[in-house]
Amino acid sequence: MTAMTEFELIRRYFAAARCARPGSGVALGLGDDCALLSLPASEQLAVSTDTLTAGVHFPGVCDGFLLGQRALAVSASDLAAMGAEPLGFTLALTLPEVKLDWLEQFAQGLDRMAEACNMVLLGGDTTRGPLSLTLTVFGRVPQGQALMRSGARPGDLLCVGGATGEAGGALPFVLGERQERGAYVDTLLARYWSPMPQFMLGRALRGKAHAALDISDGLLADCGHIAAASNVRLVIESERLPVSPALAALFGPAQIRSLALSAGDDYLLAFTVPERHIAELQDEFPQVSVIGRVVNGQGVCVHDALGRDITPVQTGYQHFAKP
Amino acid sequence: MTAMTEFELIRRYFAAARCARPGSGVALGLGDDCALLSLPASEQLAVSTDTLTAGVHFPGVCDGFLLGQRALAVSASDLAAMGAEPLGFTLALTLPEVKLDWLEQFAQGLDRMAEACNMVLLGGDTTRGPLSLTLTVFGRVPQGQALMRSGARPGDLLCVGGATGEAGGALPFVLGERQERGAYVDTLLARYWSPMPQFMLGRALRGKAHAALDISDGLLADCGHIAAASNVRLVIESERLPVSPALAALFGPAQIRSLALSAGDDYLLAFTVPERHIAELQDEFPQVSVIGRVVNGQGVCVHDALGRDITPVQTGYQHFAKP
Repeated sequence: MTAMTEFELIRRYFAAARCARPGSGVALGLGDDCALLSLPASEQLAVSTDTLTAGVHFPGVCDGFLLGQRALAVSASDLAAMGAEPLGFTLALTLPEVKLDWLEQFAQGLDRMAEACNMVLLGGDTTRGPLSLTLTVFGRVPQGQALMRSGARPGDLLCVGGATGEAGGALPFVLGERQERGAYVDTLLARYWSPMPQFMLGRALRGKAHAALDISDGLLADCGHIAAASNVRLVIESERLPVSPALAALFGPAQIRSLALSAGDDYLLAFTVPERHIAELQDEFPQVSVIGRVVNGQGVCVHDALGRDITPVQTGYQHFAKP
Repeated sequence: MTAMTEFELIRRYFAAARCARPGSGVALGLGDDCALLSLPASEQLAVSTDTLTAGVHFPGVCDGFLLGQRALAVSASDLAAMGAEPLGFTLALTLPEVKLDWLEQFAQGLDRMAEACNMVLLGGDTTRGPLSLTLTVFGRVPQGQALMRSGARPGDLLCVGGATGEAGGALPFVLGERQERGAYVDTLLARYWSPMPQFMLGRALRGKAHAALDISDGLLADCGHIAAASNVRLVIESERLPVSPALAALFGPAQIRSLALSAGDDYLLAFTVPERHIAELQDEFPQVSVIGRVVNGQGVCVHDALGRDITPVQTGYQHFAKP
C-alpha cells in the first residue's frame, strides 16, 4: 500500500461520489473551506448532528457498506421527523488506520443511502483515531411548517409509522448471539443496518401533526420527549401496538412487548395528530398505527386492554446513564 | 456524583449557554430533532465541519476551558476564510467519562469563544468514547461573494493576515518540553489555544481577493491548496515573511523560518489580491503583509532575496501521511 495523504483519501473516496448538483440548492461542495447552500426565503434550513461511535452505536468490527448506509440513514431520519426535504450532509470520519477495501465499501454504502435519500455530500473531515462518525444533515422545510416536539395537545391521537422493536430484535443476530437465518432475520437486519427515513410521511404530516419525532431511543423514551416538550401526558394502549411479523416469528410475547416499547434504533416516526386527519393519513400510509392518545398531565404510561397501568420501569437507552 | 443522563448533561451545560436569539436567523435551537435556520434569498449559507481528536489535534490531557475556546475558533476560522458572517454551530462531543468540573470548564470556554464570534449553539450530540469533538459551523455570505480557493490569477499579490508560525512555536510549551514563561510565551500560547478567526478581514476581502483560505496545515501546504485549485504557481519571497516578535525572542532564525512556512494551526488568512487593492486593505488591516506573488505554472516555491529557490521539502501536517 502506498502512502496516502488526508486530501487524497477524501478526494478518492468521497469527492467523486455525490457532489454539488444544479438545482439542489448546493452552490459549492467539497474542496473549499466551506460548502455554500442557497435557500429560498420561503424556506427554513433544518440541521441536525449525530455521532456514531464503534462499540457504542455499532459493533466494533462491522461491514463498511452496512455502516455507511446506516450512518446516513440514522442521521437523515431527524430531517424526516421535522417534515424537511433532505438536501445534503457533512461527514467527519475518524479512522484508526487506512484500510482501502473497508473505506471503499463504506463510501459505497454511504453513496447508496445518499442516492436513496436524494442527498449530496457537502464537506467533511478525516482524522486518525478510534472509529467514529459524525454526520451533520441538512434539509429544507417551508417557513413555519416544521414539525416540533412541543405541540402535542390533549385529545390528539398518538401514532407510529410502523411496528417498533425490529432494530432491537436484530441485535442478537448482529452480535452473533443467535445464528438463525431466513427472511424474518433478514427483515430485522435490514431495519437495523438500513432503516429508511420516513421522509414522505414526515412531509405529509406538515400542517396536520401537532408533534413529531423519530424513534431512536425507544418508543417510551421518545414519547417521553414529546410529553416533556409539550407539557402533556401520553397514554400508550399496549394492545394497539403493531406487532412485527418478523419479531412474532422469532421472539416470545413478553420480549416482543419489551422490544416494541423500549428498544431503540427503529427510526420510525412517532407523532400526535387530531383525530380528523387520521383516516386520510392511513389511506396514504397504511403502515401508520394509532397506539394511544394525549391527555392532560405529564410523562408517558402504558395501559393494557383493561386500562391498567403496565408501564415498564426502564425507558430507553441513555449514554452515560448509570444504573 | 449522581447519575446523569445524556439529556440532562446536554441541557445542563450547553442549552443554557447561548441558544436561539431573535434576529440571529436561528428560529429553533437545541431540544428538537433539528435546529431551524432562516436566510434571506440574497445570502448563501456557508457550512464547514472539523474534528479535533485528543492526542492528534490537542494534548490528551488538557484544560477544558482552553479546549472549548480552541475547538470553536479553529472551526469558525473556515467561515472567515469564505468571507462569511458567523451564525452558529453544532457540537458533537465524545467523552470517555463524565467529569463535571472539566465539562463545565469546557462549556465556559466554548461559550466565551461563541460570544467573541457572535455565534450560537444550534444543536449537538453527546456520546461515550475516546475524547473527540466535531463542530459544524454555519455562516452567511451575500450571494456570489464567498471567497474561494480557486480564483487566484497570475499577477495577484500573495498576502497573509499576520506572522505565521506562532501556534507551532507554542507546541514545545504546550507539551511541557520547554519551561520558560513570560509575555512572549503567553503570546504563543494564546495563538495556539484561542486563535481569533479573522472575520473582519475576510469580510473586507469580499469583492477584492481572488482566492483565500485560512492557514491550518501550514503556510506552504495551504498555499499549495490555492495553487492547485486555481491552477497557478505561488511564489513566496522569504525575506517578506513577517517575523513574530515572540518567535524571534524564543527561537533561532532557521527554526523561525521553518515554523513560519510549515507549522500549522495559526488560523490566519492567506489570500491573493490584485495590487490595486493592497494599500486600502493595509490601511484598514496593518497586520496584512504581502509575502509573494502569483505566476503562471503550478505548485508553491520559496525564493530568497536573490531569487534562489529555497523551498523546503516538507509541506505541512497531513493525517495518515506515512513518512
